[in-house]
Amino acid sequence: MSLIVQKFGGTSVRDAERVMNVAKIVTDTYAKGNDVVVVVSAQGDFTDVLVDKQEEINPNASRREKDMLLAAGEQISIALLAMAIEKLGYHAVSLLGWQAGFSTSSAHTSARIKNVDPSRIQAAIDKRNIVVVAGFQGISRFGDITTLGRGGSDTSAVAIAAAMNADLCQIYTDVEGVFTADPRKIPNAQKLKEISYDEMLELATMGAQVLNNRSVEMAKKYNIELEVLSSLTRVPGTIVKEKTRMEKMLISGVAKDNEVARISVVGVPNNPGFAFKLFSRLSKKNINVDIILQSIGHDGKKDISFTVAKDRGEEAVEALRGYVDDIGAKEILYDDNVAKVSIVGAGMESHAGVATKMFEALYDAQINIQMISTSEIKTSVLIEAKDADKAVAAIHEKFFG
Amino acid sequence: MSLIVQKFGGTSVRDAERVMNVAKIVTDTYAKGNDVVVVVSAQGDFTDVLVDKQEEINPNASRREKDMLLAAGEQISIALLAMAIEKLGYHAVSLLGWQAGFSTSSAHTSARIKNVDPSRIQAAIDKRNIVVVAGFQGISRFGDITTLGRGGSDTSAVAIAAAMNADLCQIYTDVEGVFTADPRKIPNAQKLKEISYDEMLELATMGAQVLNNRSVEMAKKYNIELEVLSSLTRVPGTIVKEKTRMEKMLISGVAKDNEVARISVVGVPNNPGFAFKLFSRLSKKNINVDIILQSIGHDGKKDISFTVAKDRGEEAVEALRGYVDDIGAKEILYDDNVAKVSIVGAGMESHAGVATKMFEALYDAQINIQMISTSEIKTSVLIEAKDADKAVAAIHEKFFG
Repeated sequence: MSLIVQKFGGTSVRDAERVMNVAKIVTDTYAKGNDVVVVVSAQGDFTDVLVDKQEEINPNASRREKDMLLAAGEQISIALLAMAIEKLGYHAVSLLGWQAGFSTSSAHTSARIKNVDPSRIQAAIDKRNIVVVAGFQGISRFGDITTLGRGGSDTSAVAIAAAMNADLCQIYTDVEGVFTADPRKIPNAQKLKEISYDEMLELATMGAQVLNNRSVEMAKKYNIELEVLSSLTRVPGTIVKEKTRMEKMLISGVAKDNEVARISVVGVPNNPGFAFKLFSRLSKKNINVDIILQSIGHDGKKDISFTVAKDRGEEAVEALRGYVDDIGAKEILYDDNVAKVSIVGAGMESHAGVATKMFEALYDAQINIQMISTSEIKTSVLIEAKDADKAVAAIHEKFFG
Repeated sequence: MSLIVQKFGGTSVRDAERVMNVAKIVTDTYAKGNDVVVVVSAQGDFTDVLVDKQEEINPNASRREKDMLLAAGEQISIALLAMAIEKLGYHAVSLLGWQAGFSTSSAHTSARIKNVDPSRIQAAIDKRNIVVVAGFQGISRFGDITTLGRGGSDTSAVAIAAAMNADLCQIYTDVEGVFTADPRKIPNAQKLKEISYDEMLELATMGAQVLNNRSVEMAKKYNIELEVLSSLTRVPGTIVKEKTRMEKMLISGVAKDNEVARISVVGVPNNPGFAFKLFSRLSKKNINVDIILQSIGHDGKKDISFTVAKDRGEEAVEALRGYVDDIGAKEILYDDNVAKVSIVGAGMESHAGVATKMFEALYDAQINIQMISTSEIKTSVLIEAKDADKAVAAIHEKFFG
């Protein structure tokens, strides 16, 4: 007998029919002799409905009250799923985040899980219940309802799997697994049987939003085997674990990220410490910098270019403007008409020429590369936004065609 | 400085505009130097939306999960009202039933309040917050979310007022107070300035559903002064308290109840104990009997007629059928085409002829009386349903015209 944690996102429970479908998956798993803990998000667009209600009343509402409001979403979906499980003749108990033992920081709307005490979940399992837990939420040490922010339900599921030493944590979503590229755009994209935590992390960062990064990081830390699969097709998905056996495969996937912007500080005097001071100004505002490129410099001047998330772009320029004038740089250039395309794969470590093959594909497609960044398992290029889809297709064809 | 508890029902918070209106009332009260605790129900028809969701999935869902589902309704409204109060520049903290200290029995969907520990409410007040509490809900000793059943938010408000020794508990609704008759049907119905707990209880039982009975009983027990008033018109409402000063007024109001049915057991052998056995069969099924009429009897036979709530009528007949055959009664008659019309007033105790005046009004209107029941502060008659409105108008004209 195994303990399996299953997580279902909002689209998987968006209406009564989908809720019954999830109940069928859950009870089938239980009927095979497993203990099952289910983690659910709010139904479909219900969170948007709640946000609209808030916006109409007070767009600047306190984050504590936003959490109180949003947490009602999962409360509805766990009750409905428990009822659907009862309908199929099984015992179910729904638990809110705080009932399920989720202690979090008090950073409302983006709280961190501090501890999961699974004793109440375990007690319900011991009574042969299927336990349905509200994802995305917990309770602070002040007894206030908190939410975990974007992708929080994935994190909730992995946290329970870690706290209960589960045998498997299945993340059900609306795609069948992790693909070598976005299957909606690349028709011959292949579903991966397995992928390592690190590769998954790189892919998630790259905009292939199958799994939330926090959840993968936690799974890696506690060595929880994840499976990403579809709630609709009932076929095996992609296993995410520490070591994969894909010796032949050089790369796991190609991904693109349109949500980036490039900032260039041009004509910087060639003095030490400028880069440090520049980026510390951004980190003070919690703005993450991704690819960084610094020119060799000539005439005592150099250029520094870097990318940030598009939605923080203007803020980043604002943060730097006064400072850049002070030190006598020439100007700041801003371009959010760019995209980052990346290949990810543990095979890069041991196989030379992977990056070269990528650049070749881009050259063949006549796509100009603005910036390049590499890590042990990833190579990224920054290109014009309009070329992004063409670039993914060309690279995918080169490696998987 | 006074402590005022204000309760707003679902229609008072049904949309953003109404929520802002409530926030205005609440903050006006606070700005006058009062401490304010607000109790809110779920928005407008949101509870119906949730019930529809449940019905679509599992009409026979467990009561524990029904409570989990329904409690989300108030969670949404307390967060929205707190946000609206923030919008007006005041500090607000919303609290769920369990956070506000509501311990209840574990009778899901109709739990009884066992205890209210107001320490968290008080702590929030001490920090100069307006506290917004979810009505209708609490927590069982098993840590499960419970709901109080119909009219539960009124009870929540009175329970807080009692636990915190509040100076006043205002129940805001969509009528301006308690009237001498239903003002939608009797144009010259008068709003009462004051009414006693007992009169209010009788009127509530009579179908004048202004206040939930449990809340009035609790207010009487803890001597909490209530005010029933409208959230829309901002004029003084009706005060409900122990002793009223309305010496001149014989009766407080006329009310009708269409939700009754009459059952007659005809041709019962005149043996002792029959009535006891008959009604104990009904009480075993928790069916309340209201007016009872027993004929004197002739030829060793008698008839017993009584009224029950219409929605329990068929069940009552079912419960009696076998038994009635056994003891050789002739037949059971059932009629749900009846209505109960009542006058209520503390003045009846000291003034003779009040009932007579009521019967005279009915006689003048040519309305036939089927059954009569009297108590110290109430006289009720059972008549044909079609005559009910005419009867109320005639009686009201007689006393208040």
